[in-house]
Amino acid sequence: MSSYLGKNLHVSIFGQSHAPAIGVTVDGLPAGERVDLEELDRFLQRRAPGRDATATPRKEADKPRFLCGLTDGVTCGAPLAAVIENTNTRSRDYSSLHDVPRPGHADYTAQVRYGGFQDVAGGGHFSGRLTAPLCIAGGIALQILARRGIEIAAHIQAVAQVEDRPFDPMGERRETFQQLKTASFPTLDPKAGEAMRRVILLAREEQDSVGGVVECMATGLPAGLGDPMFGGMEGRLAYALFGVPAVKGLEFGAGFKAARMRGSEHNDPFTMKDGHVTAKSNHAGGILGGITNGMPLIFRAAFKPTPSIAREQDSVSLSRGTEEKLSIVGRHDPCIVPRAVPVVEAAAALVLLDTLLDAPAILKENQQRTV
Amino acid sequence: MSSYLGKNLHVSIFGQSHAPAIGVTVDGLPAGERVDLEELDRFLQRRAPGRDATATPRKEADKPRFLCGLTDGVTCGAPLAAVIENTNTRSRDYSSLHDVPRPGHADYTAQVRYGGFQDVAGGGHFSGRLTAPLCIAGGIALQILARRGIEIAAHIQAVAQVEDRPFDPMGERRETFQQLKTASFPTLDPKAGEAMRRVILLAREEQDSVGGVVECMATGLPAGLGDPMFGGMEGRLAYALFGVPAVKGLEFGAGFKAARMRGSEHNDPFTMKDGHVTAKSNHAGGILGGITNGMPLIFRAAFKPTPSIAREQDSVSLSRGTEEKLSIVGRHDPCIVPRAVPVVEAAAALVLLDTLLDAPAILKENQQRTV
Amino acid sequence: MSSYLGKNLHVSIFGQSHAPAIGVTVDGLPAGERVDLEELDRFLQRRAPGRDATATPRKEADKPRFLCGLTDGVTCGAPLAAVIENTNTRSRDYSSLHDVPRPGHADYTAQVRYGGFQDVAGGGHFSGRLTAPLCIAGGIALQILARRGIEIAAHIQAVAQVEDRPFDPMGERRETFQQLKTASFPTLDPKAGEAMRRVILLAREEQDSVGGVVECMATGLPAGLGDPMFGGMEGRLAYALFGVPAVKGLEFGAGFKAARMRGSEHNDPFTMKDGHVTAKSNHAGGILGGITNGMPLIFRAAFKPTPSIAREQDSVSLSRGTEEKLSIVGRHDPCIVPRAVPVVEAAAALVLLDTLLDAPAILKENQQRTV
Amino acid sequence: MSSYLGKNLHVSIFGQSHAPAIGVTVDGLPAGERVDLEELDRFLQRRAPGRDATATPRKEADKPRFLCGLTDGVTCGAPLAAVIENTNTRSRDYSSLHDVPRPGHADYTAQVRYGGFQDVAGGGHFSGRLTAPLCIAGGIALQILARRGIEIAAHIQAVAQVEDRPFDPMGERRETFQQLKTASFPTLDPKAGEAMRRVILLAREEQDSVGGVVECMATGLPAGLGDPMFGGMEGRLAYALFGVPAVKGLEFGAGFKAARMRGSEHNDPFTMKDGHVTAKSNHAGGILGGITNGMPLIFRAAFKPTPSIAREQDSVSLSRGTEEKLSIVGRHDPCIVPRAVPVVEAAAALVLLDTLLDAPAILKENQQRTV
Repeated sequence: MSSYLGKNLHVSIFGQSHAPAIGVTVDGLPAGERVDLEELDRFLQRRAPGRDATATPRKEADKPRFLCGLTDGVTCGAPLAAVIENTNTRSRDYSSLHDVPRPGHADYTAQVRYGGFQDVAGGGHFSGRLTAPLCIAGGIALQILARRGIEIAAHIQAVAQVEDRPFDPMGERRETFQQLKTASFPTLDPKAGEAMRRVILLAREEQDSVGGVVECMATGLPAGLGDPMFGGMEGRLAYALFGVPAVKGLEFGAGFKAARMRGSEHNDPFTMKDGHVTAKSNHAGGILGGITNGMPLIFRAAFKPTPSIAREQDSVSLSRGTEEKLSIVGRHDPCIVPRAVPVVEAAAALVLLDTLLDAPAILKENQQRTV
Repeated sequence: MSSYLGKNLHVSIFGQSHAPAIGVTVDGLPAGERVDLEELDRFLQRRAPGRDATATPRKEADKPRFLCGLTDGVTCGAPLAAVIENTNTRSRDYSSLHDVPRPGHADYTAQVRYGGFQDVAGGGHFSGRLTAPLCIAGGIALQILARRGIEIAAHIQAVAQVEDRPFDPMGERRETFQQLKTASFPTLDPKAGEAMRRVILLAREEQDSVGGVVECMATGLPAGLGDPMFGGMEGRLAYALFGVPAVKGLEFGAGFKAARMRGSEHNDPFTMKDGHVTAKSNHAGGILGGITNGMPLIFRAAFKPTPSIAREQDSVSLSRGTEEKLSIVGRHDPCIVPRAVPVVEAAAALVLLDTLLDAPAILKENQQRTV
Repeated sequence: MSSYLGKNLHVSIFGQSHAPAIGVTVDGLPAGERVDLEELDRFLQRRAPGRDATATPRKEADKPRFLCGLTDGVTCGAPLAAVIENTNTRSRDYSSLHDVPRPGHADYTAQVRYGGFQDVAGGGHFSGRLTAPLCIAGGIALQILARRGIEIAAHIQAVAQVEDRPFDPMGERRETFQQLKTASFPTLDPKAGEAMRRVILLAREEQDSVGGVVECMATGLPAGLGDPMFGGMEGRLAYALFGVPAVKGLEFGAGFKAARMRGSEHNDPFTMKDGHVTAKSNHAGGILGGITNGMPLIFRAAFKPTPSIAREQDSVSLSRGTEEKLSIVGRHDPCIVPRAVPVVEAAAALVLLDTLLDAPAILKENQQRTV
Repeated sequence: MSSYLGKNLHVSIFGQSHAPAIGVTVDGLPAGERVDLEELDRFLQRRAPGRDATATPRKEADKPRFLCGLTDGVTCGAPLAAVIENTNTRSRDYSSLHDVPRPGHADYTAQVRYGGFQDVAGGGHFSGRLTAPLCIAGGIALQILARRGIEIAAHIQAVAQVEDRPFDPMGERRETFQQLKTASFPTLDPKAGEAMRRVILLAREEQDSVGGVVECMATGLPAGLGDPMFGGMEGRLAYALFGVPAVKGLEFGAGFKAARMRGSEHNDPFTMKDGHVTAKSNHAGGILGGITNGMPLIFRAAFKPTPSIAREQDSVSLSRGTEEKLSIVGRHDPCIVPRAVPVVEAAAALVLLDTLLDAPAILKENQQRTV
């Protein structure tokens, strides 16, 4: 259990921030799926730095090179592997991290876990940079899902105290999804977006950082995906999403608000619509008993503030056992949430495709009713 | 991926609410561990109904029978299996659920997922009753962890709007842990507990239910447990905890509050204490980069309100495609949170023991420094 | 990795030879499958002792009790669990095994592996008795496969030097399969069977035991099951079959004989038959590149001689470090191969059903050709 | 389940014969292990073509490029990834394989499995070329094992009818192991090697190919590795070894010969040597009840003859449903067994290291005897 994921799809992410390259392998993609490389590139650009004034000006040429798994741009059934060469690295920024760990980072825990042999440059394997290969795999999954009528979109639901309006749990218009996917700062309410950007720029001015919340919705999912208990959609998605660096909270549907509600208020009454079973509300976030009910699947992921801040911080020298002051130089996002939006979509897409690959077996078996 | 869990430990839960029996198998327990059956019984009683005036008066004789895995009360290395016979079932309460699904329950999604072949009586495999075998396995894990200096405790942090004081993230006194483990309604602040009970009883009077939050803390964990990305402690714990019925949200350390904080505020500054590295605060909830840092591990799980309420609700007839009124009869907890407290401890214990079984390999390897 | 198995199906076997009970859980069975309990009982009787004069007269009432997973005899989608109570145990037969390990048994390795805490009575979890729950799970899988046109049969291909004629790799008649399933000593050539029985009885007279080979064939498999490399049918089957106690060799198709052949002889030339692709020979045993080709799948498993023999043997005292003489009393099969025949079928059935549950997803995806 | 492997180690192999690159990721290697790149290169050269007159003259520059996982040549705990660029490919050799499948190859089964989207050039993902990345991972595992006193060596035990002397199951001298590792045609008896080479060259002359057997031995393994049933060493090793293309049979210790033996002959009597428990013979191949007993671990893998032969063969046109003649052009090994020797060592090393990473946990737990 480490940097891999999945049951039918098998996603394995590799690389350190300043290693020669980072990348991903995906085993189990259905054969015969065209990968639209331009669309994938647009998706990866949403995660790339330097896209908005609020982000780090650091440049990352996130151009994946596909080593295998595609023939003439179409999945061939063999494992797909893609790498991104690391070019624009500045290893001089990261000296002495072996000894004086940065608060909020994995420097200290990696030191214990790997006995001092970990690669500290740029955070090593713990770097947010590793979300780039996750987005390659997830971007391909998004294309495959879209062909089956499943769309996933996310927006910045909160930055610090500033909140965007939440997704309508009964669904959003297709155009809203499209707008989110092309916006440089994806919010549903442009004014909220402006306020968020001001909060981020202020934090940067003050050599500080802020956290936030990403809300994600998947539409078009058939009812019947997922399993009870540990195979439920919540657990499967959580396993992937807590793998995204800086995620510290996750809630589905009404989530923590559900804890404050009454059953009569929270239960979604069933109703019929166009001859299909549906519900009058969607506090469940599209999941009942771990299994999709055909309503939009909704969740929110809480991101902690970027731990790399320019202000002086307290730390210790691991070798000397003394207290030390630490100043982090280098270019960092004062808020990673805007760039995390496609990462959340990618992680969700991989889990949903993985689960969907179960479904033909499952649903088909039921329909045959062999008794 | 379904009703099993774990990498070194392999926990497999079986049973339906009204099947002849429910139970659990645990493969991978270390050999030579004495299971204190009286202590285990006390632990299971914390989950059992009828213990507090706020709970269902339904009786469940949750006495596990151990089929194998123990010799003279000590684990022998072979898989352990334990079953609870289902005696006090009232199958007449649950007619017609195949046709008119209960809002907030898995009736409808199970119907789609299993093509109508699912066992509907008492919620079948989706019943909260399945947390009893989870507690057998988890109760044993708690004993094994305690022998290694790791203690886990949880309390009712919220019921509806009423909140208990949170755990002190820097740690609680041992006596507090002991009190929580013997209390019939485990809160840190007795007054909060009283207010919560009133809220629950009121909801029951009004034929309704309420949700709540369980907060859990593990102390004594060594630094260095867990892996980056998808093997992080958050993802491992989330996978298990979202397997507990009714959990819809989960957060670690500052969690969703972290999203509202600044980095300078959220980062936990390192410091030295008694010659050991520690931190001045614990917003991280004991986890950095997915790996334990030696501070108390803290998380909160949000439970939705019990979906079974006595009030009439709207539903549909799946066979006729008509809208129907539904009234649920039978005895149900107006709030499952008090009984969920040991379940959360059990799930956490299983994940922590599973991860700890990795640790000797991991830490040992590092200490040898073979270069 | 221990006493469980499978990807879609998840089979977990528990019990020790003299524990209160032994049993199995199977998670992931398709819902809606009727389990013919009489047919299952007939299948289990094929493994039971006391059925042929060559077997141990020990009685085992291998009547499974189903705890859950079935409603009205039909799989309901929830994990199935079944147990067999251990009644006819004679624990006095197995004293002092902690100290003086029996040659050919797991006594010594279990002592090291479990630090002396293992259950030694009757071989504990290493006992061949654990193949009874494997047969419960496998017997159900056989019924589900048969409904999909897939039949599995096995015969005693060799006992010591005596050989039965091999299966015709191009297929056997349906009646042959039926005869094997009802024979008390399943061979294709009755004369070979008689000779084998004489060899077994002679070995018993001489306080000794003999080994043998089981050959197994599955017909009706669609082409396209399995995956390249580690997901190949050979590896999947091997993983399960080497889990059967006493199996020390496994070969597919021509197997070890293939190593002596020329390519021009071993390659199976493709041909057309009734409009379908097939082959003129079947040295591949129905598997090419790890994937089924639609021909009968054939393999042979080599079983070592029963290690429990009445003759005096050399061993050591683990506590005293001295050489010791050991005599094993009790009733043992002088050859386990006849009783192993249904066990091999059961293990194969579980793997084939597990793989088949992948197939609708896999094949369906291909047929859609989404490019 | 496909091109990945392992529990603690996680090995994922990617690439097609004529894709831009092939490679491997290994997650879970202990941190702090120096990788001797020169030694690794020598190991990879043993698999490379063109090394012996019996092999294909085709050149493959099997120089791995390490993308990540190493810092200053030492494992850093992050996943290791290495790729080999494919340079010397001749894609014109492999036309029309989509339509007329080669006998003995995966062309037909891949066509069914992947719906015609598979990469056919050079066998695609099914190519023996994929054993090069397996050897990168395995070569590193061999170095790590050697540091812990575990040595693995293999030899060509048979080519067609010609047999080398078998390993002495009680162990071989260290020098013998060293000689095997540097020989261009590794046999224990040089005369057998000469005879084998003649058989291979004759087969080539006759536009044909031959199969053979590789025997492998691991020494220095502690007793107590592995688990009962499906976690036994035989099953773990088999799962990996049947992932090596062309392996069709596998046997441990006496293997198929055990089936012909009596118990009194096959059982290895325990004895004491230098104060340690050992055995007087090793028919068990170092494994009892799935668990290592401290004796040399021995197995033999049967390889089918190279399916690519220059002779005209019978096949069919999948599109037209007609019978066709097929002639395979290109350069192929008339016998892959010599080049398979290091591949077998590599696969065994990965499984043994994976299991060994369990062992500190397992053995440590036992030693503490916490009752």
